[in-house]
Amino acid sequence: MRIGRFSADGEERIGVFDGAEVVDVTAQFDSFAEALAHPESADTAGKERFAHDEVSYLPPTTDRSAVFCAALNYRKHAEESGRSVPERPYLFTKLPRSLVGHEAPIQYHATVTEEIDYEGELACVIGDSCRHVSSAEALAHVAGYTVLNDVSARDLQLSFSYENDDMVDWFAGKAMQATTPIGPFVVCNEIEDPQDLGLASRVNGTTMQDESTRMMSYSVAELVAYVSSLVELRPGDVIATGTPEGVGVFQDISLEPGDDVEVEIEGIGTLRNTVTHAE
Amino acid sequence: MRIGRFSADGEERIGVFDGAEVVDVTAQFDSFAEALAHPESADTAGKERFAHDEVSYLPPTTDRSAVFCAALNYRKHAEESGRSVPERPYLFTKLPRSLVGHEAPIQYHATVTEEIDYEGELACVIGDSCRHVSSAEALAHVAGYTVLNDVSARDLQLSFSYENDDMVDWFAGKAMQATTPIGPFVVCNEIEDPQDLGLASRVNGTTMQDESTRMMSYSVAELVAYVSSLVELRPGDVIATGTPEGVGVFQDISLEPGDDVEVEIEGIGTLRNTVTHAE
Repeated sequence: MRIGRFSADGEERIGVFDGAEVVDVTAQFDSFAEALAHPESADTAGKERFAHDEVSYLPPTTDRSAVFCAALNYRKHAEESGRSVPERPYLFTKLPRSLVGHEAPIQYHATVTEEIDYEGELACVIGDSCRHVSSAEALAHVAGYTVLNDVSARDLQLSFSYENDDMVDWFAGKAMQATTPIGPFVVCNEIEDPQDLGLASRVNGTTMQDESTRMMSYSVAELVAYVSSLVELRPGDVIATGTPEGVGVFQDISLEPGDDVEVEIEGIGTLRNTVTHAE
Repeated sequence: MRIGRFSADGEERIGVFDGAEVVDVTAQFDSFAEALAHPESADTAGKERFAHDEVSYLPPTTDRSAVFCAALNYRKHAEESGRSVPERPYLFTKLPRSLVGHEAPIQYHATVTEEIDYEGELACVIGDSCRHVSSAEALAHVAGYTVLNDVSARDLQLSFSYENDDMVDWFAGKAMQATTPIGPFVVCNEIEDPQDLGLASRVNGTTMQDESTRMMSYSVAELVAYVSSLVELRPGDVIATGTPEGVGVFQDISLEPGDDVEVEIEGIGTLRNTVTHAE
């Protein structure tokens, strides 16, 4: 079951993505959070169908979602960053307004940054509220999995220092308006092991990241458990699980308007977006 | 005009705080965000009234609000932290679920922290959406002002390091469930100059912070303008403007269950909460 959000004919809708078509199941749920809580109850029989090219993809989240992102969660990415793996999960947050859907432009805000970068990541989406859940029980609270591109303004994130301190700016560098693609949809009840998925990022067709989610330092289950030790997790919340090695900044590569970025995860699909000058 | 949210008789309501009473103006607005956009249109004539002791205060925000917090925005607090004033505003975010209202318990989560601290702050609440607004125009987008106590788990925030890096954990140390008091309400159309207000924090009646908002490094207007350069600001969003010197951590003081914490700001009122073992 692939469930997500899209707009068609000027309306925002909840959809089941079924091969080449999207089936509108909006009327069956009070909200997208409820659809994530009970994706198996979506019934596509006799519902309105759209071809993919008739719709715009929306982020498969809600405007109340919390978006947690794990930093430095692959050892080789920590190494390329000149860091080690943190002693516990190290998280920052984005805002729902930071997100855009599959095929939407990644906004290049030239007024504030001139160095943006991709980070392909597996993300889980919560389907069932939880607090103080154990790692063993954590995945039962996950509705499914999607792809997130943790686009980062490196000049804002990393060049922020005063005196001898090298401070990381997790807000300005990570949460700008409409810069973080997520989607295309949430894959529910299909992924047997989120720690055994191939992940690849491509820029203009060239592979930049190619790793297995097996290489995460803290697993999806451990991240869910950890976040739930600090706050209640709710349906629609997202936990992005960190990026593997191969980001642009350590290769002196940054994204430019017109660049196509794809992040593909085995068993989920490909999240594709083009960098575009902000309106 | 003092507008906020409260619960009474089991229902969440929008209220105008009028002397010793709260007037229920819920029916006049589609949402609290709309009330913040048009507080002057609240009409208290003939509406249901409650005494303050009949109601529970709720955070004067929404579940879609973004909560931005400025770090190190008073020079003497930066100095007591062993830092200098950052070269541009340095922001982190909290979640709406991090917030609690006036008189609600500050949750002490002993499973994850044993060192929590107060930080009294002036906060502005947005009434009118804006993006790329100038400092000169910024305050026209502010609905009003409230008090925020940026309660922090210092052991999680500051003791996080690997190798030679002294990393600050802005999520775990700042955004735990139900730890950040805000309120009692938003004061609209009364504060002539947000940069000329006395701010005092007291723990069990002892004054710990006592400063003027004049001492902020980046003014409210500059913070609004800066945030709006990165994301769209929307009605109900909160920007907390940083804390002056006198926090507990640099005096070897931390809060314990049972401690009463008050933050008073001239022209707004007093935000009072008691630290309580988490449920």
